[in-house]
Amino acid sequence: MGYEINETHDPSIQSFVESAAGSDFPIQSLPFGVFEREEGDNRIGVAIGDEVLDLEACASAGLFDGDNEQEDELIAIACSMGALNFLMFQGPEIWSKIRRRVSELLRAGSEIEQDAELRAHVLVPRDQVRMLLPCEVGDFTDFYASVHHATNVGSMFRPDNPLLPNYKWIPVGYHGRASSVMLSGEDVVRPNGQMIGGDDEPPTFGPCKLLDYEMELGFFAGGPVNEDGEGIAIGDAWAHVFGVCLVNDWSARDIQKWEYQPLGPFLSKSFATSISPWVVTAEALAPFRVPAFDRPEGDPKPLPHLHDEDDQQHGGIGATLEVLLLSAQMREQGMEPMRLSIGSFEHMYWTIQQMLAHHASNGCPIIAGDLMGSGTVSGPEKESRGCLLELTWRGSEPIELPTGEVRKFLADGDEVIMRGWCEREGQPRIGLGECRGRVLPAR
Amino acid sequence: MGYEINETHDPSIQSFVESAAGSDFPIQSLPFGVFEREEGDNRIGVAIGDEVLDLEACASAGLFDGDNEQEDELIAIACSMGALNFLMFQGPEIWSKIRRRVSELLRAGSEIEQDAELRAHVLVPRDQVRMLLPCEVGDFTDFYASVHHATNVGSMFRPDNPLLPNYKWIPVGYHGRASSVMLSGEDVVRPNGQMIGGDDEPPTFGPCKLLDYEMELGFFAGGPVNEDGEGIAIGDAWAHVFGVCLVNDWSARDIQKWEYQPLGPFLSKSFATSISPWVVTAEALAPFRVPAFDRPEGDPKPLPHLHDEDDQQHGGIGATLEVLLLSAQMREQGMEPMRLSIGSFEHMYWTIQQMLAHHASNGCPIIAGDLMGSGTVSGPEKESRGCLLELTWRGSEPIELPTGEVRKFLADGDEVIMRGWCEREGQPRIGLGECRGRVLPAR
Repeated sequence: MGYEINETHDPSIQSFVESAAGSDFPIQSLPFGVFEREEGDNRIGVAIGDEVLDLEACASAGLFDGDNEQEDELIAIACSMGALNFLMFQGPEIWSKIRRRVSELLRAGSEIEQDAELRAHVLVPRDQVRMLLPCEVGDFTDFYASVHHATNVGSMFRPDNPLLPNYKWIPVGYHGRASSVMLSGEDVVRPNGQMIGGDDEPPTFGPCKLLDYEMELGFFAGGPVNEDGEGIAIGDAWAHVFGVCLVNDWSARDIQKWEYQPLGPFLSKSFATSISPWVVTAEALAPFRVPAFDRPEGDPKPLPHLHDEDDQQHGGIGATLEVLLLSAQMREQGMEPMRLSIGSFEHMYWTIQQMLAHHASNGCPIIAGDLMGSGTVSGPEKESRGCLLELTWRGSEPIELPTGEVRKFLADGDEVIMRGWCEREGQPRIGLGECRGRVLPAR
Repeated sequence: MGYEINETHDPSIQSFVESAAGSDFPIQSLPFGVFEREEGDNRIGVAIGDEVLDLEACASAGLFDGDNEQEDELIAIACSMGALNFLMFQGPEIWSKIRRRVSELLRAGSEIEQDAELRAHVLVPRDQVRMLLPCEVGDFTDFYASVHHATNVGSMFRPDNPLLPNYKWIPVGYHGRASSVMLSGEDVVRPNGQMIGGDDEPPTFGPCKLLDYEMELGFFAGGPVNEDGEGIAIGDAWAHVFGVCLVNDWSARDIQKWEYQPLGPFLSKSFATSISPWVVTAEALAPFRVPAFDRPEGDPKPLPHLHDEDDQQHGGIGATLEVLLLSAQMREQGMEPMRLSIGSFEHMYWTIQQMLAHHASNGCPIIAGDLMGSGTVSGPEKESRGCLLELTWRGSEPIELPTGEVRKFLADGDEVIMRGWCEREGQPRIGLGECRGRVLPAR
């Protein structure tokens, strides 16, 4: 199942919220998040321009009431939770119904526009709220779905053997640490850890010297995903995706190098993973679906449980992802962040559907709210490499900042800013928002 | 901090529950678990012989009331939750206080013994309750702390390079899947997955052919563990352990072999991890602490953050772990399970304290209720190998069952039964209970 393009995507509809048009969050987007108006009062909201529609306030004002009492009540309950998990569990029909209703409520001429008191009750300026994690992340899985990233990194860690034989057969992934998933804007403390010593020297323990970011696209599982352990048919997988966010999978390369054999990355990753606060729904992405990666001649065709003929037409996502850096010196001098890379999710070797179908294929219980990261999004060109390890080629090609500073890896005070968006001719651009985090010195 | 041996460990104290003495759960043990008397009514209990002390019923009967109103109220709340997480969060002082009180309540001559009505209210026969997972497992981490296991497995997967250079420097571990942690007694469906094909053949997808178990000891983090990200001093680590359980980390060896490079085990593990229902507290283990593994001459001394001189005296746990198998044929013929292995946790290269201090050393948030597995517990002798991969040496030395059946790996209908206990001269033996699971055919 995909989502059809419907009236909620219509480029001609306009919101009465004036800041919406041309912003990251026009009325065609309607991403979900969780915010606090007052401390401890978590609420589900939808971003529209510079404002947030408070869904709990909408529900209590009866704005979701329609002609199906049972379903209306379910929606009111789902929208009144302090996290998105229960809403994520409801599945595509309910998600669509809420989206259609929210779209109506935010259009020019709606009952909210016409009632100043109601408007003040249900709409809040975004700069007056504090964002929270959108849901409780039960489990976090990180994939490795960019063949460019895997080849680049593989050639550094295993020069003789960059791309392992399994790479083109399975979307390689590993279990991450759910407890270290944090919200954009939170500072990231440089981790301590054990690193390989010099020649014939013992390893050392101390602050990571090779701190890196990884630009990823994340997705949240939704619906009753794989509770019976039956697996997910590849053709059904997209219906089990609630939405996407930006992910910075911070990485300590020196800790990683020493620890990762034979059981994979562990403490090199589990100190922090930042995510953007607004979850752009799978339905909002409908106009931006693009053909899945076109495997070059000679690459194997995926096994049947990972192959969907339809995905050749629209299995991918046409999202552009950008990484910027603002050093402490740049900040002091009032400079703008400098772009480090820009690339497209279209170059990913594996689709989100393949990742999810693979993940569920062994009967693994997948729960609404589980987060999965795509792995670093790197494209074929140098400018599209999604981490410093690749961009500076392990530090051998340092990057010069406008202040004259150079970077092989991240320095204390550096802020990494990730942005993403989808655009195509004839359709309003929708933003994926921003994921930012600043590096603090090690403890 | 360790726990001193105190009056709750005194071998001379007797419970009025007659089945307690000589059972897995004498009054010196007092393990915690969660059970249902009626569906949906989860309660925290303490096992004593063939019965369960219902802590919620005790709290509501005022049996925890003492001279510190605030603390008594906290204990009453913690004991009235449907899962152990909140109690696990309270830390060693509260745990000890509850243990002392429960010990008093279960002794011969206590107010419970003397009041038949009260007794009927707070004590339930174990065979009349259904056990549940003891807590919500936020994150599950699996270590690899037996050098015998690591060397055996390494020599099969990497004959030239069995024990990697990091092994004796860090307790190698990886993030597991919390959602697939299940309770002893639940059936385990043989997973499907992708496996390497024959020579020059493509990989195949289907039921795992090399299904295995792994005998592990698990431990639950407790207290405010690493919320500030400051790490845990090795000398404080044991105070952050609420208790231990038995873990069967079911493993699909053929799926593992194909998928595990370069990011570690993933779907070969995430279909099922079974745990025993009764959590034996760190305090109950006080009489059974033994010297940590004595590293052979030439092995490196751990770096300071992983070294505690005191652990040379009592850093280990003197627990015996046994694995038994009951095939479908054996069951039909009314046979007893056959012992496959028996070994001791004393041979583990890394202590639980080292695992926890390492895990927290990068600032990773660790939350009360997080589960960590030791990795397969294998000792130096063949009979102490904790998985079939090692016992049958990858299938080359099959095991014969009393029915004449042979096993290289697990067959459908096989039930794996793990048991554990601690014993030492002059001290009542305490059991770790049982962790069992039967293999169902693949879907």
